[in-house]
Formats: sequence, C-alpha cells, structure tokens
Amino acid sequence: MPDLIPPQVLKGFRDALPSQELQRRTLMAKLEQVFRSFGFVPIDTPALEYTEILLGKGGGETEKQMFRFEDNGGRDVALRFDLTVPFARFMATNLPQLALPFKRYHMAKVWRGEKPQKGRYREFFQCDCDIVGVDSAAADYEILAIMARSLEAVGAEDSTLLINHRGLFNRFLDRLGVQNQSVEILRTVDKISKIGREEVLGLLESLTGRSSAEQILAYIETTGEPDEALLTMENLAGGPAEDSQRLREVLSMLRENQLLQRFRLSPSITRGLDYYTGLVFETVLNALPEIGSVCSGGRYNDLANLYTKEKLPGVGGSVGLDRLLAGLEELGVMPQTATTTLVLILNQEASRIGRAHAVAQQLRNLGVPAEVYLDQRKIPSQYKFAETKGIPFVAALAPEVSQEPQLQTFQLKDIRTGEARAGLTVKEAATWVLA
Amino acid sequence: MPDLIPPQVLKGFRDALPSQELQRRTLMAKLEQVFRSFGFVPIDTPALEYTEILLGKGGGETEKQMFRFEDNGGRDVALRFDLTVPFARFMATNLPQLALPFKRYHMAKVWRGEKPQKGRYREFFQCDCDIVGVDSAAADYEILAIMARSLEAVGAEDSTLLINHRGLFNRFLDRLGVQNQSVEILRTVDKISKIGREEVLGLLESLTGRSSAEQILAYIETTGEPDEALLTMENLAGGPAEDSQRLREVLSMLRENQLLQRFRLSPSITRGLDYYTGLVFETVLNALPEIGSVCSGGRYNDLANLYTKEKLPGVGGSVGLDRLLAGLEELGVMPQTATTTLVLILNQEASRIGRAHAVAQQLRNLGVPAEVYLDQRKIPSQYKFAETKGIPFVAALAPEVSQEPQLQTFQLKDIRTGEARAGLTVKEAATWVLA
Repeated sequence: MPDLIPPQVLKGFRDALPSQELQRRTLMAKLEQVFRSFGFVPIDTPALEYTEILLGKGGGETEKQMFRFEDNGGRDVALRFDLTVPFARFMATNLPQLALPFKRYHMAKVWRGEKPQKGRYREFFQCDCDIVGVDSAAADYEILAIMARSLEAVGAEDSTLLINHRGLFNRFLDRLGVQNQSVEILRTVDKISKIGREEVLGLLESLTGRSSAEQILAYIETTGEPDEALLTMENLAGGPAEDSQRLREVLSMLRENQLLQRFRLSPSITRGLDYYTGLVFETVLNALPEIGSVCSGGRYNDLANLYTKEKLPGVGGSVGLDRLLAGLEELGVMPQTATTTLVLILNQEASRIGRAHAVAQQLRNLGVPAEVYLDQRKIPSQYKFAETKGIPFVAALAPEVSQEPQLQTFQLKDIRTGEARAGLTVKEAATWVLA
Repeated sequence: MPDLIPPQVLKGFRDALPSQELQRRTLMAKLEQVFRSFGFVPIDTPALEYTEILLGKGGGETEKQMFRFEDNGGRDVALRFDLTVPFARFMATNLPQLALPFKRYHMAKVWRGEKPQKGRYREFFQCDCDIVGVDSAAADYEILAIMARSLEAVGAEDSTLLINHRGLFNRFLDRLGVQNQSVEILRTVDKISKIGREEVLGLLESLTGRSSAEQILAYIETTGEPDEALLTMENLAGGPAEDSQRLREVLSMLRENQLLQRFRLSPSITRGLDYYTGLVFETVLNALPEIGSVCSGGRYNDLANLYTKEKLPGVGGSVGLDRLLAGLEELGVMPQTATTTLVLILNQEASRIGRAHAVAQQLRNLGVPAEVYLDQRKIPSQYKFAETKGIPFVAALAPEVSQEPQLQTFQLKDIRTGEARAGLTVKEAATWVLA
C-alpha cells in the first residue's frame, strides 16, 4: 500500500464545513436580495489577472502580499487581492457595453499572502457594490441606504453608520495651513481614548502650534445631531462650500427616508485609502464596537484612470463579510445549523424504500426539504444521525402502502420536544413541519 | 500623463457581464434549491492547495494543465483543476466532524491551462453533488433523482438520462475473455454512426474474433424499455449478479417515483475516468443531443484512499453549468436580461429627489425591485437608459408631495406596450407591475 498524502490545507487557508458555508451563503443571499432590490446587477471577473493590471501604480505592501507567478505561457500573472482593481479594469474593458450610471455588486474570493493571524486568512470573500459614472448626492445617498438596508436585512439594524466628507476635512486643515501634516494629525487624534485629551493636545501643539491644536480638537470632537454637527464643522472649515452642501443634501435624503437616526457625522473618519475624494463612511455594530467597521466605503473621483482616458467618478461600499458574520454570531442572530433538511424519513425495510423516496418528493413539492436515510442501519442509529445533523423531524412510514404517495400515512416525531403524531398524510405533515 | 495600462484579460479567461452573470446565478440558485430540498449541504475548499494533493497519483495531462507555482513561503502550490480531488482531501481532513452518509454540493470555480478554444475556458464553474459513506441502491437512485429534478427545475425536463453499470459491462467482456481490450473495443464501437455497422463489426472481429465481435455488437445495441434491456444485457453477461441486481433496484425506485420515463439504459456508456466502479450516467438534451452530456457522474469505490485509510464509497453527479447554460439559451428557456429592476423612477427635479427614493423604497418593501435614475439628465435620456437596460416600467412622481410616501401618487408607464396610468399609489403600482 502506498504512503498516504497528508490531507492538509495551506497555512492561512481553510475549509468551510457545512454549518459555516450555510451561514455564509445565507448572509450573501440576503445581501444580494437587497442589492438587487436597488437595481444593482452582478458581474464577475477572473481570479487571475496580469500582474501589471493588479499592481497599477501600486507596489509596496500590495506587491509583497500578492500570489504572483509566471504561467505556462510565460505571462506575469497574479491572483486578485481585492475586487476594486479588477472592477476598474472591467469598466475600462467593457465600457461600450454598459449603460451609465452603472451599478454593480460583486461577491467573490480574493487572496492576500499576509501573515496569518486570528481572524485573518489568506483567502477570503469580499462583497462590494459601486455606482459608477455619476457624481451626485443621490448616488452617495443610495450607497449609504443600501448599506443601512443590508444591515437590517441580516439582523444588524442595531448599528451606526459614521459618515464624513474628505473634502470638508481637507478644507479645514487647509484653512489652518497644516494639510501636509494630515496623516500625523489623524494618527495623533486617534490616540485620545488611550492617552487622554490633554496628552493629545500637547502632541498636536508640537505639530501645529497651540491655536491650531485647539481648533483641530474642537473639529474632531464635534458631536450632536448631524445637521448641527455639520454646521459646526462647516464653520470651522470656513463656511459653506460644495463639500458641506453635498453632505447636507445627503443628510436631507436620509431624513426623508427615515434613515437618519442610524447615521452620525464623524469628523475623524477619513479611510486610509488614497483614492477616496468625497463621502467616506464606516459602520459599527452598537453592541460590538470593538470588532471594528463591518462595512465601509466612500466616493472616488476617478475609478479607472490607469486603464482608460474616460473619467469615471464613483461611490461604493464594501461589506466585511467575515467580520460581520463573526459579529452576528456573537450577537446570537446567526443560528448555527448543519443542514436545511426538516424531515428525515427512516429507512425501514428494503421493500418500502422506493415508497419512502416518493413520500420525500411529495414533501419537497410542498416546500419541505426532506431526505431518506440512505444506509441500512438500526433505527436508533438513524435517529442519532438526525440528532447529530440537527434535523428536527423524523418520519416512519405506516406499513400499509397506499396507492398514491400523497395518501401514504406515516408517523412524525419532533425530536426536539418528543411530540409524535401518527396517521399523518404528507399534507398534514407539511403543515405541522412548516408551522 | 502616464501611459495607460491596456485593460486586457488573460487568454482563456473572461469577464461576465451582468446579463451573463444574472443567468449563471439564476441557474445556480435553482440547482441549489433542488440540492437543498434533498438534504445536500454546501461546503467550500480553498482555491489553492498543495500540488502534491491535487496531483495525487496523477501527473500526465492534469499536471501539464495546472496553474502551479511556488508561493512566497517556498511551497509547491496549485489552483484546483476540479472539485473532486479537493473534496476527497476535505473528507480525509474533516471526517471526524461529519455524519455519514455525507451529502454535499459545491459550486465553484476551477482552473485548467488548456489550449483555449470555442466554449473552452481556463477558468470555469463546476457544480458537483456527492453522497459519501454508503454503497446502496437508494444512494445511486438519489443522485439520479436529484439530476432529473434539477433539469426540471431549470426548464430542461425534455432530456434523457442514460445509465449503465460499469461492473455489468466488465463482467460481459470478462465472459468473452476480452476485458483487457475494453478501451479499444469501446473506441471502435463509438465509430458506428460514422463508418457504419458492418465496418465496425469487421474491426471488432480483428480484435476479438467473429463470435465475440457479434456478441459485443449485440450487447452494445441493446435497446428497449429499461427492464427488458437490462434482462438482455444481464443474459449476455452470464446471468444475474450484484451489478445487474443493483441496476434493477435503481430502476424500480425510479419507476416508483414516476421518473423512469426520463431514463434509458445505455450499454456503451462507461465514462472515461478510472475511478468509477458501479453506476455511470450521462444526460442529453433531447432537442440538442449534439452538444453532449450536460450532467454526468457515477459511483466510485473509494473516494479518498490517497489521503486516508478510511474507506469512503460514494456516488456523485456533476452539472456542466456552461454547457447547460448554452443549451438552455439555444432552446430559448433562459431569457437574457441585464437587470432585475422592474421600475425606474425618473429623476425630475432636485426638490423631489428624496421623495423619489422614499417611493422606491416603498416599492421594494412590496417586493418590487425599483431604482431612481441617479444623474440629472433630460427625461428622454432617462427613458433611453430604461430601454437599454431592459427595465420594463418607468415612473414619474406627481407634483403634489403627499405626507406619506405610500400615498404619493405617480404616473407609471409600461415602455414595452406604451400603456400608461396616472394617479397610482405605490400599492396600485406594485399590483400592476407584479401582475
């Protein structure tokens, strides 16, 4: 006998067992339904692309993390590390065939050779939706609305969307003459909860001088109802301008759609990525702020400028599927189940097995997922199978075989409660099971 | 301005535009619903695996076609080229956590560096379902039933499942003492439609002698009702044995489930792959036999013997998604659409845009996918957008803004027929649109 090959998965990769995969697919189906209700359509792109395309201007961290290699034809290729870069390439490639504004979603795997750590994998799902080809408050609003409705749909309505406008913050820093220090300023401000307000004020002062430091803290600490907060920030930034007007329009649309109570203006959010130019947002689960943002995104000026001269402004959001799933599990709104079957029909005797399958099909036709135990084992083993898998009902056919499967009677037992009923027809059983 | 990067996809790869991706997802959702109704559960495995695992005993063609490379950690890795090998590894890895019999489906991408040609791509979807851990007629039946029901669900009920038992054919060849020539015999027999019966008989005679050649043709040409055909083949193979008994049981279960009329015994089907040991099947669309089998599979003795000492018999089927999709399109049962939106709400004037979005949400809440045009363009351009995308209804809000969005009235027009109705509430509009 030859040596066995050890059945190991690569470091940072993992199998999804049925219970995990069912959860993920349930979550994705709910998101997809919301995306589609807003008129977003799905696309797909290859997992492998030319490295040149994925790297773009990039390099640095991205380059080190890519699964990159030479294919059999000598091409320099790599696995996509996000869905945004391939989408930019997709727009450039397929522009003549797409009606603008183009609204798409894409839920697919991406790969990054990061150092594996708790909750970080080298293969994971991303779930993006974007509106490309228009720069309007309505589009900004729509991305925020779709995120808010998505969170509702998956049971995470107890969450807050934090929004900001990158232009507004930049204008404010500009007025103080410290825009070139924005990265250090934000990094310093971020430490407030750790080192305290006074300490931060001191650090800011050494960066920008006392007066600016105080104004920066005042700006960052802006609180209150969104409209009020916006007015404060706008004044600190030097008065009304396009950026604050855009935010005001978005807030007004959120209000008219009864969504405003889910939103908060958050002056310190800028999202690290270079390409955001307008609206930016993050989302926290109110009961689990410590796990970080479960969906985020923003507006960018020009999606595909590396690949086409066509100017394509856009706005998009990305749901952090794995993090959201972990959060929903912790909140107990994502039940674990290893099956979708509601009824297991016992495999009693060979002569009745065809009939058992016919009854299972009758149940399916009435919307009840049903399966027949496929092996010949003792009845207690078959019950144990139902328990292990979490199938709630077990059925045993009555010995009298009826002419019509739908008239065949059987005994049905709810193994969670022990309640059993005999002499049920398929229809009666379906009614009970689906109740 | 820097040079643009040409937005090209790799040879043999392709983007899926919304119309294509919508079709594929519709098809997969229908299949998934059938799989789940039978109690099959989804799993997932990494796209990348150790090359050693994917190659198994293999090599040859498989090895040449793999996207294989050394990762940043110096590991010899490759993209999976099918879902069966990773599933075998998955079973060996996760066996302690799975209740047997284990029934799983997996719909995911695989990659093969084949020479690209019409209808052949280097990245494509596979869609497999398997029952592992039991060798029973009921399991064989169930895979056949799930395939038949899947075809019904996607509108391909006008199709025939061709079944055979590999053991029965081997026993027949054994009786003639020509089993070691089985490959050449089958290859010769395959030419009947091309070169004619007499020619084939001559070729067979030179391989096996006159008497065997005649018996082989008699066996291969067995026709008639499945039970009759089985009897003929069984007699030619030397009488009843486990193989023919198994087929008989499967036929009986198909009959009891009103599925037998969709099946035919086909003595020449063996499926190329080494690992099948019992039942084998293929499926043709009756109106398009020339496109080849749209789903196929069979029983194997031992799925995971390269990775574990545990013996895992199984039976499985695989739907050829791309081929089935092409077939359904040709048959006209797979409508092309670039959107799922039913109503486009016109973007009329800035002051009413928030209200337009509120009305859209009311329509969504009633199950109507609706979107507001997001840019400010002339009304004819907005109509053109609806036409291009294939959105059937266009709505214009009445100028009077009602207190409640659900009481807001509007004009709705079916742009396919030109029929327009004014003064509709959201509810009235939803009723018309969903009618």
